[in-house]
Amino acid sequence: MQLGLIGLGRMGFNMRERLRAAGHEVIGYDHHPDVTDVASLNELVEKLAAPRVVWIMVPVQYTEPTIDELSGLLSAGDIVIDGGNSRFSNDRPRAERLATKGIGYLDVGVSGGVWGRTNGYALMVGGDKKHVEHCKPIFEGLKPEGEFGFAHAGGVGAGHYAKMVHNGIEYGMMHAYAEGYELLEASEYVENIPEVFKSWRAGSVVQSWLLDLMDRALDEDPNLDGLRGYADDTGEGRWTVEEAIRLAVPMNVIAASLFARFASRQDDSPAMKAVAALRNQFGGHAVKKG
Amino acid sequence: MQLGLIGLGRMGFNMRERLRAAGHEVIGYDHHPDVTDVASLNELVEKLAAPRVVWIMVPVQYTEPTIDELSGLLSAGDIVIDGGNSRFSNDRPRAERLATKGIGYLDVGVSGGVWGRTNGYALMVGGDKKHVEHCKPIFEGLKPEGEFGFAHAGGVGAGHYAKMVHNGIEYGMMHAYAEGYELLEASEYVENIPEVFKSWRAGSVVQSWLLDLMDRALDEDPNLDGLRGYADDTGEGRWTVEEAIRLAVPMNVIAASLFARFASRQDDSPAMKAVAALRNQFGGHAVKKG
Amino acid sequence: MQLGLIGLGRMGFNMRERLRAAGHEVIGYDHHPDVTDVASLNELVEKLAAPRVVWIMVPVQYTEPTIDELSGLLSAGDIVIDGGNSRFSNDRPRAERLATKGIGYLDVGVSGGVWGRTNGYALMVGGDKKHVEHCKPIFEGLKPEGEFGFAHAGGVGAGHYAKMVHNGIEYGMMHAYAEGYELLEASEYVENIPEVFKSWRAGSVVQSWLLDLMDRALDEDPNLDGLRGYADDTGEGRWTVEEAIRLAVPMNVIAASLFARFASRQDDSPAMKAVAALRNQFGGHAVKKG
Amino acid sequence: MQLGLIGLGRMGFNMRERLRAAGHEVIGYDHHPDVTDVASLNELVEKLAAPRVVWIMVPVQYTEPTIDELSGLLSAGDIVIDGGNSRFSNDRPRAERLATKGIGYLDVGVSGGVWGRTNGYALMVGGDKKHVEHCKPIFEGLKPEGEFGFAHAGGVGAGHYAKMVHNGIEYGMMHAYAEGYELLEASEYVENIPEVFKSWRAGSVVQSWLLDLMDRALDEDPNLDGLRGYADDTGEGRWTVEEAIRLAVPMNVIAASLFARFASRQDDSPAMKAVAALRNQFGGHAVKKG
Repeated sequence: MQLGLIGLGRMGFNMRERLRAAGHEVIGYDHHPDVTDVASLNELVEKLAAPRVVWIMVPVQYTEPTIDELSGLLSAGDIVIDGGNSRFSNDRPRAERLATKGIGYLDVGVSGGVWGRTNGYALMVGGDKKHVEHCKPIFEGLKPEGEFGFAHAGGVGAGHYAKMVHNGIEYGMMHAYAEGYELLEASEYVENIPEVFKSWRAGSVVQSWLLDLMDRALDEDPNLDGLRGYADDTGEGRWTVEEAIRLAVPMNVIAASLFARFASRQDDSPAMKAVAALRNQFGGHAVKKG
Repeated sequence: MQLGLIGLGRMGFNMRERLRAAGHEVIGYDHHPDVTDVASLNELVEKLAAPRVVWIMVPVQYTEPTIDELSGLLSAGDIVIDGGNSRFSNDRPRAERLATKGIGYLDVGVSGGVWGRTNGYALMVGGDKKHVEHCKPIFEGLKPEGEFGFAHAGGVGAGHYAKMVHNGIEYGMMHAYAEGYELLEASEYVENIPEVFKSWRAGSVVQSWLLDLMDRALDEDPNLDGLRGYADDTGEGRWTVEEAIRLAVPMNVIAASLFARFASRQDDSPAMKAVAALRNQFGGHAVKKG
Repeated sequence: MQLGLIGLGRMGFNMRERLRAAGHEVIGYDHHPDVTDVASLNELVEKLAAPRVVWIMVPVQYTEPTIDELSGLLSAGDIVIDGGNSRFSNDRPRAERLATKGIGYLDVGVSGGVWGRTNGYALMVGGDKKHVEHCKPIFEGLKPEGEFGFAHAGGVGAGHYAKMVHNGIEYGMMHAYAEGYELLEASEYVENIPEVFKSWRAGSVVQSWLLDLMDRALDEDPNLDGLRGYADDTGEGRWTVEEAIRLAVPMNVIAASLFARFASRQDDSPAMKAVAALRNQFGGHAVKKG
Repeated sequence: MQLGLIGLGRMGFNMRERLRAAGHEVIGYDHHPDVTDVASLNELVEKLAAPRVVWIMVPVQYTEPTIDELSGLLSAGDIVIDGGNSRFSNDRPRAERLATKGIGYLDVGVSGGVWGRTNGYALMVGGDKKHVEHCKPIFEGLKPEGEFGFAHAGGVGAGHYAKMVHNGIEYGMMHAYAEGYELLEASEYVENIPEVFKSWRAGSVVQSWLLDLMDRALDEDPNLDGLRGYADDTGEGRWTVEEAIRLAVPMNVIAASLFARFASRQDDSPAMKAVAALRNQFGGHAVKKG
C-alpha cells in the first residue's frame, strides 16, 4: 500500500524502514534534506495516488500547522493520520475541520520507542471504522507480529486517549521500579543489585519489558553513576492526571510519579524552603543558608 | 538431589511437583494427611540422608516454631531454607541460632504464584556461598529455564529483602495499571477497554506479565463486574515502606499503592468523616448522615 | 458607600448584613423573593447612583450570564466585582469584555464561610489599583477588624488565584488533621481523643481555626458517628492541582487530599477491582465477589 | 511545688524560666556548667524532698541512660516524667521497670517550641491518674492560660502517642502551606505573595499559628532567598507513618510530607536516575550525565 509519511525523526524514520521492509511504498517528507524523499508537502501529495493516506509524525507543536497546510492540498476521500503525541482533545475539532472537505481523520497512539523498528509498534487507533479498515495494511505493517499490538479503541480521539493512559501507566511503573531500586541502593542487605534485577526477569510477578531495560541499563552502568536523576515529562503524563481530575478518579500513584519528575528538575524546592522557614520560626531549628 | 519440604499448600505442593519433574527426590511434610509423604517432622528428618536440606514453605506465623522444632532434630552440616514470606529482619537471628548447632541457613524469596509450577519460580537467595552452592541443584530445578530467575543476593537476609522489594514494586506496578484502568472506565473516549489492554501486550512500553494477566482477567469479565474492589496486603508491602522510612527513601508510589489497599478494606473512612465534619462546621456544607 | 449585591444565599445574605451593620447602603438582588430588595437586575441598576459598584455572589454557573446581562445595563465608570468561586482564567476575558464598555472589573476571593458575618471575611482582590481604591470602603466593611484579612494580590485574576491556592491549602490542612484523627481512632493508646484535640488549641504548633472547629465537631459528636465519610469538592481544589501540573510544581499533599475526596464518593473502586483481579490471576488470592 | 528538671537546652531552659515565673521551685541539672543548678544527678536527687518529681528533658538518645541512673537514686513514691520526644513504645517498658521500685512514670508530649516560655506549652500526658494529679501544679505552670493546652490522654504511652500524631499533623499542615507557597511563586498571577499570606491571617479558613509564622518569615525574607530547601525530620513524623502502616490507616498526606523531607536532603535522587536510565533505554531520550 502507498503511504505519505511526514516527519522522519527518531520515530518516523524507523517506521518508514519497517513499512518498506514489509513491502509498502512509503514516500517520506522531512524538512531535513538528508532523509526526505520529496522536496515539499506539495510534491508529496502530488506523488500519492488518490485516495491518499498521509501519516503525520512530527513534534506536537508542528502538527496543527501541518494539518492546516495538508487540508489545502488533499482531496475528498483522502485520509490524514496523526501518529504524534497530540492531546486527545484536539482530535475531534481537527476531524470536523477535515470532514468539511471530505477528508478523513484517524488518531493513532504509537508506542515502542527506538525498538519499534525491530519489534513492531503497539498501535491504538481512534476514528471511523471505514477509515480504519482502509488503512489496515499500514497498521499491519507497523504492529508486531502475532495477535497483540493493535486496537481500534473507539471514535476520533480514542487512539490518543488510550496512548495517554498508556504513558500514564508507564510513568507509574517506571517509578515503582525506581523506588525499589533506590531502596536496594540505600540498604545494607542486598549486595548485588544488578543480579537481583536479573533474577526478576523470568518467573517473577514483576517481569516486564521495562525490567529487561532496567537490567540492560545496570549491565552498562551498575550504579547508574553516569546519570543525573533528571527526567523531562511529555504531555501525556500531565494530561492523564488532568483527566483524573476532570473525571474525579483518585490517582495517587501516577500523580506521584509525575510530581517526582517535576521535582527532579528543580535546583532547590521552594516548598521545602517554606518548610525550613517554618521550622526555624517555631523551633529555632537550624536552617541551611541559601 | 534429596530435599525435605515442609508445607504443601498452594506454593509448596506445586514446588514439589516441579522438583520431582526435574528428577529430584522430594519428601514432603504437611499437617494435611492427603498431601503429606511422612507422618511427622521426625520421620521427615529420619528419611533424609545427612547432610540434609530442609525447605520450609509454611504460612509466616508457623515458620519460627517449625525452625525451633527442626533445630532439635537436625545435625551439624544440615541446611535449613526458609522460602516463605518472613520479614528479612528475622533471618540473621535465626541463622545465628542454627549456627550454634552447626546448621546452615538460607533465606529464599520465591516469586511466581500459581504459575510457578509450569513457568518456574524466580528465586532470590540470601546466605553463605557454600550453602548456596550445596543447594544449587534444587534452585536449578525450581527456577525457570534460561539465564534469568535466580540471584544470590547477598548474606543472610538478602533473599527475603530482595523479595520484599520485589513485592513493593509489584504493588506499585499493579496500582499503575489499576489507575489507568479506572481512568479508561471513567472516560467517554475509549469504547473498547479490553481491546486496548490487549494492544499493549506487544510492542508497547508497558508490556509485562501483569499486563498479560490483566488482559486475561478482562477476557473473563470485561467490566470486572464480578469482583469487589477489595485487596488484602501481605507483610512485604508494609515492610517495604517501613524500610523506606528507616532509610529515608522517598517512596510516594509504593506507599500510595499500599494505602489504597488499606482504604479498600474500610467500610467508611474515619478521616473523611473528619473532613466532612470540618466542612460542615465552617461552610455549612451539607453532610451525609452516618 | 452604596453597593449593589447580586446573590443573597448563604454567603451573600450574611455579607449584606455585615455591610449594613458597618453603615453601608446595600441593595440586594436575588431570584428568591423573600430576601431580595429589588425585583430585577434592571431595578437594581436603576436604584444605584453612578458610578455604580455591583458585587456578584452567585453560584459559579450563573456568574457568566449575570455579567452578560449586567454589561448591557451598566455604564462607563461602573465597576463589577465577582466575589464568587470563578476559575481565575475566566477573569481576564471578562475584564476585557467589560473594558470595551468602560466598565471596570475586580475579582475577589472571599473566605470565611458562615462565620464571616461575625468575624469578617478574608478578601483577596485582583484588578486595577484605581478600582480597588474606589471599592476600599466596601472591603473595609467586609474584612475582619485589625491589620489582616485583606490583600490586593495583583492584576485581574490574582484575587481568584489567591483564593484558589487558599482552598488548596485548606484541603491539605483538613486532611492532615483528618489523618491524625483516624490514627488516634485506630490506635489503642489514646483513650480520650476529643481531649487531645482540645489540648492542641493553645500552646501547640498545630493550633488553628480549623482545629477549633474540629474540637467543636467532636464536642457535638465525639466519635463522628453521625456522619458519613463523604466530601464533595469545589472547583478550587481541582484547579490548584491543574495549576501545579501546568507549572510543574510537585504537589503530593494537596493532590492526595483532593483524591481522597474523589474516593470518598465512590461506592466501589474500579482501580481496586483491577488490583483484586490481578492478585487473583497470579496468586490465586481469594477475592470478594461483586 | 518543687521539681527536678534534667536537661536545660532550648526547651528545658525555657521551661525552668516559665515554671519559676509561676512560683515553682525548679532545680535544674545539665551537663553544661553555665546553666545547671547542681553538679550531678546525685546532688539533684538529694536536694529534692520526697516524694520527688523529676522531669527529664534531654535529647532522645540520652533518655534511657538517664532513667537508668535515676532509678538507682530515687525512692518508692517518686515520679519520673519524660517530656522529651521518646517513641511511645518505650514508655510502657520503662514504667514497668520503674514500678518494680515503686517509682511512678508519666510520659508528656510537649509542644510549643521557642514560643512556649511566653505562650505556654501544650501538654499531652500519659500515665496513671494519681501521678497526673500529683504533678498537676507543674502542668498548670507550663500550660497556656485558659481552658486549652492540657490533656490527660490515657495510660502510659498515650502522651507521647498524642504528641507523635500532633507532629505528624504538623508535617502535613506545613507542607500544605509550602505547596501553596510554591504554586504562588511559580505562577504569573499573584504579584504580592507576602501580602496574600497576610490577608489569610484573619477571617480565612486557613488561619493558624503556623500561618502567622509563615507571614513572619516572609516579612524577614520575602522570597526566602536566604534559605535552602532542606529539612531534617525528627522521629515523630516517621513513627506516625509507621503506626499508620501497623494499623492499616491510609495516610497519603502525612507520608508525602515526610517523603518530601527525605528528598530535600538528597543531592541527587537514585530513583530518578533509574527513571532517566529507563527513558534513555526505550526512547533514546537525552539524559543528563552525572
